Amino acid sequence: MKLARVVGTVVASRKDPKLEGLTFFLLEDLDGKMKPRGSIVVAADSVGCGVGEVVLYASGSSARQTNQTDKRPCDATVMAIIDSIDLADGGSLYSKAEG
Amino acid sequence: MKLARVVGTVVASRKDPKLEGLTFFLLEDLDGKMKPRGSIVVAADSVGCGVGEVVLYASGSSARQTNQTDKRPCDATVMAIIDSIDLADGGSLYSKAEG
Amino acid sequence: MKLARVVGTVVASRKDPKLEGLTFFLLEDLDGKMKPRGSIVVAADSVGCGVGEVVLYASGSSARQTNQTDKRPCDATVMAIIDSIDLADGGSLYSKAEG
Amino acid sequence: MKLARVVGTVVASRKDPKLEGLTFFLLEDLDGKMKPRGSIVVAADSVGCGVGEVVLYASGSSARQTNQTDKRPCDATVMAIIDSIDLADGGSLYSKAEG
Amino acid sequence: MKLARVVGTVVASRKDPKLEGLTFFLLEDLDGKMKPRGSIVVAADSVGCGVGEVVLYASGSSARQTNQTDKRPCDATVMAIIDSIDLADGGSLYSKAEG
Repeated sequence: MKLARVVGTVVASRKDPKLEGLTFFLLEDLDGKMKPRGSIVVAADSVGCGVGEVVLYASGSSARQTNQTDKRPCDATVMAIIDSIDLADGGSLYSKAEG
Repeated sequence: MKLARVVGTVVASRKDPKLEGLTFFLLEDLDGKMKPRGSIVVAADSVGCGVGEVVLYASGSSARQTNQTDKRPCDATVMAIIDSIDLADGGSLYSKAEG
Repeated sequence: MKLARVVGTVVASRKDPKLEGLTFFLLEDLDGKMKPRGSIVVAADSVGCGVGEVVLYASGSSARQTNQTDKRPCDATVMAIIDSIDLADGGSLYSKAEG
Repeated sequence: MKLARVVGTVVASRKDPKLEGLTFFLLEDLDGKMKPRGSIVVAADSVGCGVGEVVLYASGSSARQTNQTDKRPCDATVMAIIDSIDLADGGSLYSKAEG
Repeated sequence: MKLARVVGTVVASRKDPKLEGLTFFLLEDLDGKMKPRGSIVVAADSVGCGVGEVVLYASGSSARQTNQTDKRPCDATVMAIIDSIDLADGGSLYSKAEG
């Protein structure tokens, strides 16, 4: 899975019928310092994420293993909202509580 | 899914029989500023997109989950035409109405 | 799918039994100006392509959706020979007739 | 598979129900000199790895072929802890015993 | 498929049970001049390759289409040992006989 921040919402009224009911978010990939890597992806959502949150998303066929995305033409799905990331040296890379 | 702009049409009379009936478009990948990233892809179409439009496309096995592309040797499919992208700060990254 | 030019042929007498009978070509990926991108791939062929031609190839599981490559350990297959690519402004990016 | 070092742990209380019970690790990809490549990935674990270890992880649908990850929206799984890597010239690229 | 040279062997005693019996090799990706591209991958083997040989490997779900790797959490498999690569102009890019 990849780390990303939710930075926007994508509206598309004309879409494949199998995508009806899905919400699409614009995600910005993050690097190992939690900084933007410069790449983006548009993902469906299986967890009720919101703009600004740091999330994990799955790509490829794994993105279709949620109840929301099963058998749909969707190749990226947010499947977790991150609370915290702790490092080997005991430090904290990220904590949602600290924003 | 990835953001892209439809920039051309691809004609191929000699192709795998399973591809008969599909239309192929040349897409230019877009970055988080809606600028070309420098990479291209050729995609099938499940939504009736047209040259110049900003679209979402799915890659890999997800590209075969539309009725048009099921079981075909196709690894990229346009599955939505984007109306608008709104950012976290309330700004608009893209609006089809504004071109 | 990706745009590529067929630049060579690959011979491998020792290979997985499931690959018997397939022909492998060396492809050079092309960019949006039809120039080499610097990356290569070795692909099977479902359309009878020849060295020098500009082709489309499918990757991943989609590369196994042709009759020739079904259930084989093959992750890239040429599935179309391109006749022409026309751009949004009415110009021609590529025409096989013009070489 | 890719070579990586386990550099952290990822906690996510809000996640897709199918992910319950999986542990997620932050991995740093390694290059051919065992140095960080600059890219990261978050992976599930099928072998009981720990922070600091050098591991192999599988991506895509292959990441779902373990008993722990079967049919889950998971696209990267640690499936081996590396003991040693020996090179063609008889040298050792890596040995766990030597740290 | 990708071109690579086998540069080492990987030993991992602690691994997912489904990987028992597979041999893992360290591969160095090659470019269109047969020079190292700077990226590596660890692959299983379905053809009995050896260190120093130039091989083709398949990635993703295609890497699981050999008898050795079926249903295993393996995303890269060597499936051919290359004898020769001939170019469009009649030249030879690679010949195993010439080393």
